[in-house]
Amino acid sequence: MFNENIPYKIYLSEDEMPKQWYNVRADMKKKPAPLLNPATGRPVTADELGAVFCGELVKQELDETTPYIDIPGEILDFYKMYRPSPLVRAYCLEKALDTPAKIYYKFEGNNTSGSHKLNSAIAQAYYAKKQGLKGVTTETGAGQWGTALSMACSYFDLDCRVYMVKVSYEQKPFRREVMRTYGASVTPSPSMTTEVGKKILAEFPDTNGSLGCAISEAVEAATSSEGYRYVLGSVLSQVLLHQTVIGLETKIAMDKYGIKPDTIIGCAGGGSNLGGLIAPFMGEKLRGEADYRIIAVEPASCPSLTRGVYAYDFCDTGKVCPLQKMYTLGSGFMPSANHAGGLRYHGMSSILSELYDQGLMEAVSVEQTAVFEAAQKFARVEGILPAPESSHAIKAAVDEALKCRETGEEKTILFGLTGTGYFDMYAYAAYNDGKMSDYIPTDEELQKSIADLPKIG
Amino acid sequence: MFNENIPYKIYLSEDEMPKQWYNVRADMKKKPAPLLNPATGRPVTADELGAVFCGELVKQELDETTPYIDIPGEILDFYKMYRPSPLVRAYCLEKALDTPAKIYYKFEGNNTSGSHKLNSAIAQAYYAKKQGLKGVTTETGAGQWGTALSMACSYFDLDCRVYMVKVSYEQKPFRREVMRTYGASVTPSPSMTTEVGKKILAEFPDTNGSLGCAISEAVEAATSSEGYRYVLGSVLSQVLLHQTVIGLETKIAMDKYGIKPDTIIGCAGGGSNLGGLIAPFMGEKLRGEADYRIIAVEPASCPSLTRGVYAYDFCDTGKVCPLQKMYTLGSGFMPSANHAGGLRYHGMSSILSELYDQGLMEAVSVEQTAVFEAAQKFARVEGILPAPESSHAIKAAVDEALKCRETGEEKTILFGLTGTGYFDMYAYAAYNDGKMSDYIPTDEELQKSIADLPKIG
Repeated sequence: MFNENIPYKIYLSEDEMPKQWYNVRADMKKKPAPLLNPATGRPVTADELGAVFCGELVKQELDETTPYIDIPGEILDFYKMYRPSPLVRAYCLEKALDTPAKIYYKFEGNNTSGSHKLNSAIAQAYYAKKQGLKGVTTETGAGQWGTALSMACSYFDLDCRVYMVKVSYEQKPFRREVMRTYGASVTPSPSMTTEVGKKILAEFPDTNGSLGCAISEAVEAATSSEGYRYVLGSVLSQVLLHQTVIGLETKIAMDKYGIKPDTIIGCAGGGSNLGGLIAPFMGEKLRGEADYRIIAVEPASCPSLTRGVYAYDFCDTGKVCPLQKMYTLGSGFMPSANHAGGLRYHGMSSILSELYDQGLMEAVSVEQTAVFEAAQKFARVEGILPAPESSHAIKAAVDEALKCRETGEEKTILFGLTGTGYFDMYAYAAYNDGKMSDYIPTDEELQKSIADLPKIG
Repeated sequence: MFNENIPYKIYLSEDEMPKQWYNVRADMKKKPAPLLNPATGRPVTADELGAVFCGELVKQELDETTPYIDIPGEILDFYKMYRPSPLVRAYCLEKALDTPAKIYYKFEGNNTSGSHKLNSAIAQAYYAKKQGLKGVTTETGAGQWGTALSMACSYFDLDCRVYMVKVSYEQKPFRREVMRTYGASVTPSPSMTTEVGKKILAEFPDTNGSLGCAISEAVEAATSSEGYRYVLGSVLSQVLLHQTVIGLETKIAMDKYGIKPDTIIGCAGGGSNLGGLIAPFMGEKLRGEADYRIIAVEPASCPSLTRGVYAYDFCDTGKVCPLQKMYTLGSGFMPSANHAGGLRYHGMSSILSELYDQGLMEAVSVEQTAVFEAAQKFARVEGILPAPESSHAIKAAVDEALKCRETGEEKTILFGLTGTGYFDMYAYAAYNDGKMSDYIPTDEELQKSIADLPKIG
């Protein structure tokens, strides 16, 4: 069944691995709009950001011109512990779909955090350590980012304080235990450990918590503790920069075997994996060297690109972070509780938002039940149990491959398989039991949450 | 930190992967004792075994003379989907232990079943399909083997019926859901679907089930259904044969870089991963070409090699399978309920039992709390969250490396890291909460269970 010329899985050797991250903003003629200080309405300065984030990461966040940034040796060493990730030719999926399309996926799930999140977690932990910090704080929902950060902090012997949305803390204890195994302290949010937490608990003693509240607590914990900074797992440009290791490895592997993708697909929540995967290909597109069709896939229940507006908005529900211009549903938007996977963020990376606005990439939204149907099909033929988030990209890739079956086109489709679903079996159980449902917000709901945008820009 | 000459992870290319399994019995002067028919007390025939097992697998089970057996192309194709597994140099663990020892581990956890079990599951499913069967039946405790088999059956479009020990079915629903996602039917055992299940439920309506009962149900389901056979995930010589892909890949990778292990360590429950890892090294030892120190590691709570007797015994608690000569604690032995990991089997592979009896390998037993301590240390420095079973090997490897620190010897230690602990977070939680305890059976308990051996041989 397999083509002898192209391995089932392409692994780079360690000396073929990228030594630099790629900053796609350097090749963008029109740059993403700057972050604004919500108090002044003016672009945030490095000093202002430095109170919350590590110095070197602030530098990366604000750097729009340096195309390549060296990956420090200590990070390269850590990358060797779980990278290169395989680029897999989906021979079995192609056969099952009876499609002339050639499908490839870059699989980021073969590490204990279970996803690509580790690529940026280790970088952020490294710079925190280098700055002489004692530790970092962050928030986590289901726990993928918190797990990655706890692993990275354990490696660099940094304290890691994770504020985990209370309902997840109680209902999904396993990721919490992975974080604890890596030495992180995990606090259900809201908590009595911060002023904002106390205030919320006084007002809503029975609250289940929210990501917005957990962010506010994590930021407060960082700024009120000597030697701590706050770190974030997606949305920010620094995170997309670190995640370009995904796309760079993919490009090197494809070039090695003379493979050129026609279509590149990735799921998009805050945008970090998609931004990382497409970066070097988008770079060629921006420089006019090549053309690719690039598709962001989002859940129909949280459709920031396909149904949001491009405007300045708060990055967090607690409104403590800088304002960012992005495709957004409004910081008060809450996806339906029946939505099982991640990708629940109300906004989108400013880089991806700008590229989308310039027409350099497309976006589609897919419904949950169809996503799990694709996930199950993929698991059965390719052997990997995908995360619900990643399965959004699978669904779109399958749709594209089926179109090729209709037209007979032998397109090459590349998609990002960001992680595994081992900690999402509640959602798979709902699907297996026929109890999964779909939800699409109404226009009225979106108009209401979008109406709450800050009056800026 | 890393030695530039030896990659952090050694991956074979697809054309370097082994094309044959190695049958270590061919190089054993004194062979393992034959399986006996419990009714006649005479060696079982191929026909007798063929009523329960697939024909080609019976042939492999009884073949003591063919040293190399071709791996069919379809199985090689499937192996390419998750193999070669990496041979990892544990640079970070060495540094953390401050040891002059060089530590390598062969990591079998990078597949959705989470362990080495898939190596044999795919082979057994292939031969079942080739024989024109409709499906296979099996039992599973915590679910690692059942998961592997459900993946393999899904790939070959075979029906897969898993009898899962009732208490695991109810308390550990996630592995159950993985199996269902792969299309297996999972029945809590004892059940009303078999005569033996009905009988047990009539007598003990509130029973939690046991592995012995689940085996009996699975065997009955196979022999009473047209087009079905029973399959097993460890203990049998055919399973050890398939698992030699682990050791063969390891040997090829080590030879490629001129690495020769002094000590080879693996955990041992039924013996399949240890048997697979050591096979080619043991072959050299048997042929007098090289010498290696080989150590089986078992839990102190289930010490078949270190405290059992070498005698004929039933392979299953239900006493429906052939008798096997092996190191055993008696088929009625039940490890303490506080034991969190696997490796709970009362007996041991007949091949490993014979090699141990001939003094060609050693055995040690380790206690549970120390195992989790080693697991946590390993996770924090090497980044992989190990399965409790695998962590027995980690504990022994750490002990050996610490001895090297004392003596200054630069020994090369190889151990098998059989899988990941993502579905064992209950156990990790107990450890994190300081609620894990150790249990060592008393001499009286062992004497009692061993007294129940069949009177044969």
